[in-house]
Amino acid sequence: MILLITIPAVISVLALLSAFAFNRSVVRKAQGTDRMKEIQGYIRSGAFTFMVSEAKVMLITMAVIGAVLWILFYWEIAVAFWIGALLSLAAGFIGMNAATHANARTTHAARKSFKDALNVAFSGGSVMGLSVAGLALIGLVIVVVLFKKWFEPSTLHIETRYLFGVQALGVNFIRGALIVSAYSMGASLVALFDRVGGGIYTKAADMAADMVGKVEMHIEEDDPRNPATIADNVGDNVGDVGGLGADLLESFIGAIISVMVMVMYIYVGRANAPLAGLINQLGFADTASLDAGYWWVALAPLVIVAGGIVASMLAIFYIRFSKRQEGMQSVLMNGTRLAAVLTAVTTFLFCFFSPLSLNIFWEVILGLIAGVGIGTFSEYYTSSRFRPTRELAKMNQSGPAVGVTEGLALGMMSTFLPVILIAAAILVSYQLGGLIGVAFTAMGMLSFVAMTVAVDTYGPIADNAGGIATMSKLPPDVRERTDTLDSIGNTTAAIGKGFAIGSAAFAALGLIAAFMWSAIGSADMVMPPQLPIVGQIAAQFSPSGSIIEVGAFVIAGLMLGAMVPYVFSALLIRGVSRTSNILVQEIRRQFSENPKIMSGEEMADYNRCITITAHGGLSKMFLPAMIAVLTPIVFGLIFGRYALGGFLIGALLSAIQLAIFCANSGGAMDNAKKFIEEGNFGGKNSEAHGAAVTGDTVGDPLKDTVGPSLDILIKLMSVIALVFASLFPLYPIFM
Amino acid sequence: MILLITIPAVISVLALLSAFAFNRSVVRKAQGTDRMKEIQGYIRSGAFTFMVSEAKVMLITMAVIGAVLWILFYWEIAVAFWIGALLSLAAGFIGMNAATHANARTTHAARKSFKDALNVAFSGGSVMGLSVAGLALIGLVIVVVLFKKWFEPSTLHIETRYLFGVQALGVNFIRGALIVSAYSMGASLVALFDRVGGGIYTKAADMAADMVGKVEMHIEEDDPRNPATIADNVGDNVGDVGGLGADLLESFIGAIISVMVMVMYIYVGRANAPLAGLINQLGFADTASLDAGYWWVALAPLVIVAGGIVASMLAIFYIRFSKRQEGMQSVLMNGTRLAAVLTAVTTFLFCFFSPLSLNIFWEVILGLIAGVGIGTFSEYYTSSRFRPTRELAKMNQSGPAVGVTEGLALGMMSTFLPVILIAAAILVSYQLGGLIGVAFTAMGMLSFVAMTVAVDTYGPIADNAGGIATMSKLPPDVRERTDTLDSIGNTTAAIGKGFAIGSAAFAALGLIAAFMWSAIGSADMVMPPQLPIVGQIAAQFSPSGSIIEVGAFVIAGLMLGAMVPYVFSALLIRGVSRTSNILVQEIRRQFSENPKIMSGEEMADYNRCITITAHGGLSKMFLPAMIAVLTPIVFGLIFGRYALGGFLIGALLSAIQLAIFCANSGGAMDNAKKFIEEGNFGGKNSEAHGAAVTGDTVGDPLKDTVGPSLDILIKLMSVIALVFASLFPLYPIFM
Repeated sequence: MILLITIPAVISVLALLSAFAFNRSVVRKAQGTDRMKEIQGYIRSGAFTFMVSEAKVMLITMAVIGAVLWILFYWEIAVAFWIGALLSLAAGFIGMNAATHANARTTHAARKSFKDALNVAFSGGSVMGLSVAGLALIGLVIVVVLFKKWFEPSTLHIETRYLFGVQALGVNFIRGALIVSAYSMGASLVALFDRVGGGIYTKAADMAADMVGKVEMHIEEDDPRNPATIADNVGDNVGDVGGLGADLLESFIGAIISVMVMVMYIYVGRANAPLAGLINQLGFADTASLDAGYWWVALAPLVIVAGGIVASMLAIFYIRFSKRQEGMQSVLMNGTRLAAVLTAVTTFLFCFFSPLSLNIFWEVILGLIAGVGIGTFSEYYTSSRFRPTRELAKMNQSGPAVGVTEGLALGMMSTFLPVILIAAAILVSYQLGGLIGVAFTAMGMLSFVAMTVAVDTYGPIADNAGGIATMSKLPPDVRERTDTLDSIGNTTAAIGKGFAIGSAAFAALGLIAAFMWSAIGSADMVMPPQLPIVGQIAAQFSPSGSIIEVGAFVIAGLMLGAMVPYVFSALLIRGVSRTSNILVQEIRRQFSENPKIMSGEEMADYNRCITITAHGGLSKMFLPAMIAVLTPIVFGLIFGRYALGGFLIGALLSAIQLAIFCANSGGAMDNAKKFIEEGNFGGKNSEAHGAAVTGDTVGDPLKDTVGPSLDILIKLMSVIALVFASLFPLYPIFM
Repeated sequence: MILLITIPAVISVLALLSAFAFNRSVVRKAQGTDRMKEIQGYIRSGAFTFMVSEAKVMLITMAVIGAVLWILFYWEIAVAFWIGALLSLAAGFIGMNAATHANARTTHAARKSFKDALNVAFSGGSVMGLSVAGLALIGLVIVVVLFKKWFEPSTLHIETRYLFGVQALGVNFIRGALIVSAYSMGASLVALFDRVGGGIYTKAADMAADMVGKVEMHIEEDDPRNPATIADNVGDNVGDVGGLGADLLESFIGAIISVMVMVMYIYVGRANAPLAGLINQLGFADTASLDAGYWWVALAPLVIVAGGIVASMLAIFYIRFSKRQEGMQSVLMNGTRLAAVLTAVTTFLFCFFSPLSLNIFWEVILGLIAGVGIGTFSEYYTSSRFRPTRELAKMNQSGPAVGVTEGLALGMMSTFLPVILIAAAILVSYQLGGLIGVAFTAMGMLSFVAMTVAVDTYGPIADNAGGIATMSKLPPDVRERTDTLDSIGNTTAAIGKGFAIGSAAFAALGLIAAFMWSAIGSADMVMPPQLPIVGQIAAQFSPSGSIIEVGAFVIAGLMLGAMVPYVFSALLIRGVSRTSNILVQEIRRQFSENPKIMSGEEMADYNRCITITAHGGLSKMFLPAMIAVLTPIVFGLIFGRYALGGFLIGALLSAIQLAIFCANSGGAMDNAKKFIEEGNFGGKNSEAHGAAVTGDTVGDPLKDTVGPSLDILIKLMSVIALVFASLFPLYPIFM
């Protein structure tokens, strides 16, 4: 066990040290002109002000929820929850700190050469990538070492805690499973706040800046006269950097812990016939050999993702220290491929030299392939290199209404291929290893997350760098270089988005499965059930009055669960449009009250715009977050665990389709606009362009606020069900 | 039995005779000026040309599918299918015939007084309402009488037919259940073609006419110089009248036959423990009393809906012969309420004087209440009398992007209340009577369909009448009267839409339940299963290798099923936008090539526009229809019946949310535009109005093409699964 836990511990420390080194290498670069320093200062202080205010809200929420966990369960649960939450917060801050250091320095490097600019931007992204993976893993190592007792096979059992000493109020759980679940829940909750708050911030600023700047005043993007331009650049950092980091951190943790929880339930229920079958699929001949090899399987997720981190580090070094001056697009793609292949190799070595089944290797490989596949499909539907987005661009010639309508249709259509792939991957992984095979596949998809985040984060840095170039009135070739930088990251970023959606589906399924095992297993104070998930729910179905009729409640749960993502999305979209509406009025006010802003004689009041946007993001993030937290708890308390299983599956189904629809509609509308700007169908300022700008604005909150937040929503709801499962009755309270 | 079947037979004949009388009363009215006659002639011939072309496509499809049913099963099945299809076709034609007679006559009557206009329009609508209900019921009576042998308790059993004499290719079914299912399938298939083809037609014409007419040429709606104006008016008839009639006919039949199929399965499996429980819930003490009272319960649906038809006829007479000259809004509402109350009374009398349980009465009542409730919620979200639509109108001041974004958010938010109501109604009806209770509730919701259709149809007639008034250059007060006529129908029409969506959810659930019973019951050549729906699917779940692992296939089925409505919707939206795109070019061509059209010296070429639109509707309706027909069959053949259950439930969940979202987004965007046109937020030609026009155009295909078609999609997929169930393997073929 000591060796097995040492590997991830050492590797996560190495990852954090590399992140630190990358950060230093960025900070040492020159910042450029005074004007650039000044703008960078505005952006940094705006971003930090927002993140700190957001963190305050989160810390209070965390304190309350942690206290509830302490009272209901044990102090260890609360502590694990806090560790998860704090590390997630930290990941957001570290990444954003690096990004706001790297932006102006990327601009400055771009004055020299394209390659220099890439190096700075990618180093900034790598800080985030390595921090996310390193923090997630070191946190799990800490939790496992700190509470080692509760992961020991000898202490693994279903225990009961009587609330307030009342025997009727007993809750049942495996403490080790609850500890890692609470850790994951902490990370998820912070991620949801980050994504929702940051997502509303970034898109409200973006929409308002565009609507007044581009449409009404006919000034370019990032024109320093636009009062909202700094807020827009702050948004890139708090939404696209901070939000993304926290998001992938929580996906990563969720995927790991759903395997760990299942392993613990399999171990506790190993004498029970159906679970005994899973023992074979994990690679053990019988329960005795499972006893002997327990730590191998219990810590397998940590070791496998540690291999993924090593693979990502090597790939990052390959890209960062590549000597090539041109064709950086293919260097990035090769880096991503390298990370995937190396992850496969390390996983194979681990499975080969451990007592575990080689099927686990295949499940991880399947995750890697499915992730790349979903990403490729996203790219197909949203890149202007392919037919769908080109056709959308063409249809914009018929005006904004047709453009938006076609964009929505494209998004709906784009569910086709990814969902088939997800369904196929579920089938194959299930055949390979049952439900825990599905969980291993989710983990495989996320195993080289450090690389994915690095590439995803470098895009917004390049975007910011371009903004700073324009605002500092640098020569146009600087902006051109940063634009190229931005655009070559797009392909890999599309693949990153595919991983986010695909892994969300798998990780949520793993968490729901773990919930059903734990919920029904512990309820009866016996073994986990014979029939997991829907089976266990529905074994209670019966038209006869003699058996408890929970069937209709499952269907009602499915219906209500499927509705939650819609209401959640509506709140997010409204958060964006209403915040941006207030901001639009402020920008108009500044322009009309002070004509010297437009003539360039006086500076716009950036701070008021930043304050308004931040207020909007903060005030509108709480209700959606509470929907995610409270609906599973309230539903579970009233309708019981079986119906809650239906509720979660309904939410999963609905959220996956909506997330793909929103992400690809918005992505395609954005790229159709860019394609027109490149000179197609009339180019800039043509009728088609005007229509495409409207489409892009409609698509913005869909792709950058709603889509990513839905991914977190379903995982957060599932992990909350997993943590609170033992509180809920089995059947509806009124039956 | 003879008495019981005589009641619905007599009542359906009475309904058809009343429809005939109403039709005559309409035709006898004067048509007005020559110009009016001419325009009416254009509309009539355009509508008939389209419907006939559409019917040809359908007849060929029907012939093929009927032949397949004959080969696979028996001739009775094919005949029942054809009867259903032909009656559905007939309902569309009769309604459209009446509507295209009534439109100009309503205009003419409006020259005299508002009340006269209302009488003509409402009479026209009543023809459709009474025909729909009468045809659906008479068809069922014919099928039951024609194939009486297969509904007799003595012949009810699960039989096997060996295909081509090969014993391995046996299919199993209850013939009576299959006959009524095939009848329903025929009606559904025609309805889907009508809704999709008509929906694409009407919205493509509407969008194109608005985009060139209002936006580019700045001419009013229905201006005779617009070459697409006749196509637009034809669209109202083929989409809103023909499509709607076929739609509600198939809902009505689906709701009735799902009860009948369940009754037959309960009868066949009456000795089996769980189904024996349902016998009590139907009101029978034991199997012996079920034997004695078999016809009561088997024909109960026919008698109950016959009561609904009587209630509707009385309500229609009340409205038609009301002496009031003002407050027609409340007369219409009172009529709807009267129909609901009278339906409740007739149902109560039937349940009271029959051996059936009074719970059935409560289930019907629940359906009535839930239908009105869902309709009221639709109205709340989409009427400019309430806050959501007013706020949307206000947000349009910030431009089209914000308007569209807010409209989409409103639609997503609007799933909240209706879905809660649907879930609650499912729970209550299940508690009252198990799954067959859910089916009775669906039937209750649709029982006074004649009244709903009459009110829904009178709207498009008034709309057409207004168009004819403008095109014939009648004094503005005529148009004002027809506009008032149109608007007071809106409230009751919103309630009608609520019934359509709510009943689709319930009827589909009933059909899926019937599918699961029949599929799994007949597969084993034994009794229906102990655990219906999800239960039966999932009883096969197991992590052990020893039991067949169908679990993952159910989850994959849920995922894939949930994707189908998105792809289907995308095809519909594209059908509209691409057809309208071609039409836009044609309209522009006519205006630019012949300036005399704009100056009013020469007539526009209406026919080319009609031909283009019709071609678009016809060519783009086939693929979506085939998706509905083929996906459940292909999926069932490959993945088997358990997984198909998951597929259907996934499709149901996804379609319900999408349908509510689309219907209410579009409805609210339409009414926000009208609210602005009434003079709010700047009134006509203000910036807000321009934004709202864009929003309305985006919303048009959502509310009038996608939303209603989704309702049919899920029912058609479910009924196809029900008919073909016995062909499918139980488990995936590769297991």
